[in-house]
Amino acid sequence: MTETHLRELEDFLSESQILKDEKSLEFYGQDWVRLYKINPSLIVFPQNAEDVLQLVKWARKHKIALVPSGGRTGLSGAAIASQQEVVVSFEKMNQLIEWNPAEETLTVEAGCITKEVQKWALERGFFFPVSFAAEGSSQIGGNVATNAGGVHVIQYGSTRNWVRGLEVVTGKGEVLQLGRHLIKDSTGYNFLHLFIGSEGTLGFITKVTLAVTSQPTSLSVFLLGVSKLSDLIEIYSRFKKSIPLHAFEMMTDLALDYVQKTGKTLPLSTKSPYYVLMEIEEAYQEKALLIFEKLMEEGKITDGTLSQSAEQAQEIWALRENISESIAGHKPYKNDIAVRISKLPEFLSQVDSLLKKEYPEYKVVWFGHIGDGNLHINILKPENVKEDEFIKDCERVNQLLFSKIQEFGGTISAEHGVGLLKKPYLHYTKSEEEINYMREIKKIFDPDGIMNPGKIFNAEKSV
Amino acid sequence: MTETHLRELEDFLSESQILKDEKSLEFYGQDWVRLYKINPSLIVFPQNAEDVLQLVKWARKHKIALVPSGGRTGLSGAAIASQQEVVVSFEKMNQLIEWNPAEETLTVEAGCITKEVQKWALERGFFFPVSFAAEGSSQIGGNVATNAGGVHVIQYGSTRNWVRGLEVVTGKGEVLQLGRHLIKDSTGYNFLHLFIGSEGTLGFITKVTLAVTSQPTSLSVFLLGVSKLSDLIEIYSRFKKSIPLHAFEMMTDLALDYVQKTGKTLPLSTKSPYYVLMEIEEAYQEKALLIFEKLMEEGKITDGTLSQSAEQAQEIWALRENISESIAGHKPYKNDIAVRISKLPEFLSQVDSLLKKEYPEYKVVWFGHIGDGNLHINILKPENVKEDEFIKDCERVNQLLFSKIQEFGGTISAEHGVGLLKKPYLHYTKSEEEINYMREIKKIFDPDGIMNPGKIFNAEKSV
Repeated sequence: MTETHLRELEDFLSESQILKDEKSLEFYGQDWVRLYKINPSLIVFPQNAEDVLQLVKWARKHKIALVPSGGRTGLSGAAIASQQEVVVSFEKMNQLIEWNPAEETLTVEAGCITKEVQKWALERGFFFPVSFAAEGSSQIGGNVATNAGGVHVIQYGSTRNWVRGLEVVTGKGEVLQLGRHLIKDSTGYNFLHLFIGSEGTLGFITKVTLAVTSQPTSLSVFLLGVSKLSDLIEIYSRFKKSIPLHAFEMMTDLALDYVQKTGKTLPLSTKSPYYVLMEIEEAYQEKALLIFEKLMEEGKITDGTLSQSAEQAQEIWALRENISESIAGHKPYKNDIAVRISKLPEFLSQVDSLLKKEYPEYKVVWFGHIGDGNLHINILKPENVKEDEFIKDCERVNQLLFSKIQEFGGTISAEHGVGLLKKPYLHYTKSEEEINYMREIKKIFDPDGIMNPGKIFNAEKSV
Repeated sequence: MTETHLRELEDFLSESQILKDEKSLEFYGQDWVRLYKINPSLIVFPQNAEDVLQLVKWARKHKIALVPSGGRTGLSGAAIASQQEVVVSFEKMNQLIEWNPAEETLTVEAGCITKEVQKWALERGFFFPVSFAAEGSSQIGGNVATNAGGVHVIQYGSTRNWVRGLEVVTGKGEVLQLGRHLIKDSTGYNFLHLFIGSEGTLGFITKVTLAVTSQPTSLSVFLLGVSKLSDLIEIYSRFKKSIPLHAFEMMTDLALDYVQKTGKTLPLSTKSPYYVLMEIEEAYQEKALLIFEKLMEEGKITDGTLSQSAEQAQEIWALRENISESIAGHKPYKNDIAVRISKLPEFLSQVDSLLKKEYPEYKVVWFGHIGDGNLHINILKPENVKEDEFIKDCERVNQLLFSKIQEFGGTISAEHGVGLLKKPYLHYTKSEEEINYMREIKKIFDPDGIMNPGKIFNAEKSV
């Protein structure tokens, strides 16, 4: 970054829109992945799409790499700046632009906090169903850029399902209006879906139009104890067959052990190796209880409780939502994998054996969205193992785990994205041909390679 | 097509997989658009993806253009072969490959008839919701290639929503497995959605995995008489607010006049300028009747009937479904446009004036999916007007109509696609930048320009 570059930047950004002190560089230069050296050159804060457009034009001119930064809650390192990039933070673009009651859509700036969007929907008598542990600080732009999933995908789908329009600034320096609030449009290639999940590598999202839906009627939450991993899918299928499930979350006993250490209590009288949090509409409660009793008789469910109030439901949810936070101190190495549902029973059993064999001395915390075929596997760093040694070992096991995923036709990232962390493993999920098509597409939208370069894949095929 | 080319083709296709007689060329060389000279060189019938792959490799080698051909029910000319192209018919690829009960998906070959897929779902206790008048002959591959809409979009979304996986052969001659049955996959750019709606210009679809859903409970069908165009949206909103609508179809009196000429009877005692077919779950019938009575009192609805049996429901549906057929003899010039819902009232009124002013002597048959913001406008050719004169006049009005659409931020094709028919008007809906990005993307997947060339846009920007 030369003085000239900086001066040109100051031509269109005010002083308060540029930060370069050490603390800010460190703070804004990373997401939740703590494995990389943080080294941005500047942090800038656009206030509107025009600022973003000017930034891209400036960056193109000087071949300066830009890294988009939302709530920095990403788990794949997609928002890490380690190569003197300029970090573009969207936190000043946090306004609700329009509520359209006829279309039941909210149009918001990219930097709006997810929880805030949920609140805006509720205040208008509606429901925005994308929900996950980090929603209190994650931003909508980031949710769209990674196609965020969460706990309600089983009922409502991922972020992708709720996007009706996007305003993006491409790496070429053009503003595109994608989707344009239309329910139907059959005029050529769908760029809306191409940008969703592209992790800021094609362009930056400046505005998002989100559909909302009617509020679910009162929900009931079950917490179930399960003794065998192999029974999980059967339990899921039995409930799923007759009841619309709003959530079906698996947690291991070890996961809940860590959560209990933070002061939460397990509302069950016995301990089980596995637990399931199941959320359903209250109207289906009786039906669910009948299935529950049958599964208890068969020994597939060993214990269970049902929320009797909204508070109790929240207490059960807190067990699930606090897992990540409760293990954060143990520097977990995270994997976020998925296979198709029908292959999940066999996959679970093989992964269980693999992890027991390869990590005999590490604690492994599992939890996951069973109904989506999606598992989160967190390897905790033992205190006496050095960080680099630990990571090396996790990366060794990655190869084995990802080979297994490849064999099962699954994915190395179900909802966290690829970013930097999973980049070396992309070929386990995507074919060489697909990765090459991605490279070529990036060149079209970002001819100078300035938009979040080095994320998802490298610009050039390695030889 | 030289003898050598043909001989090479016969190396991997049997005699019965190649047709070149005049009748077949005419039959397979077109879709439902009757405005182009039909002139294919050959019709070929691959039996599997390997045949398609060999065809693409052969076409690349000799720079021969290929046109994909499904049920040939398209309304935009995307399956027209008028330039000596080789037509690739998928009708021999019509097998159900897999029913996966755990995932509730059907995997089928691209040439399966839409209605057959609906039947396969029903036989397994499920429901495939994509439904439209041409479903008895349209093929799934074509539905995906145009992201077909239909009468249930309001409740279930377009074809796009139901695709869990695609096998495609790109114009580069590579087989890609997209989506791969995964509910969640966050590893790079989404090519599944890029291929959906790409009208065979990037590659040909050989296999489709479709999600199905639970069968709707008993449905009731209302037929409502409406006196003013401006009341339509209000009526829609009032019902929509309290009742999940499975269909909400508008038809003009003229549309139903033509249908009645085919022998169908209108089950209402009075005539109205506009009619609405509304489909809801029986459970909501009482609620709907209350809203209906209120709207009658307000004079917004002038007449109405409710189906008392499945047969009666079918009879009402037949009124809607037979519109296109009943006017087919009048060589209708079709437009399939949409705007965002909130702009529909103002748009309807302006389009109504425009059509009355510009087509004083032509009969204009309107119908549409009000809940999707989508209108079908059919201009009928008067017997005494010559065809080319008629088309010229329709194209003159297109400019005015599409300018209006552009002003309202709408689309020139909601569900039919662009093909050849709407190609000259694409710029009314998509920006020059977007069209250029489309051109560049086509070059990546189809470097030799052999996959349905000249459809959607021309390969080179015209000067």
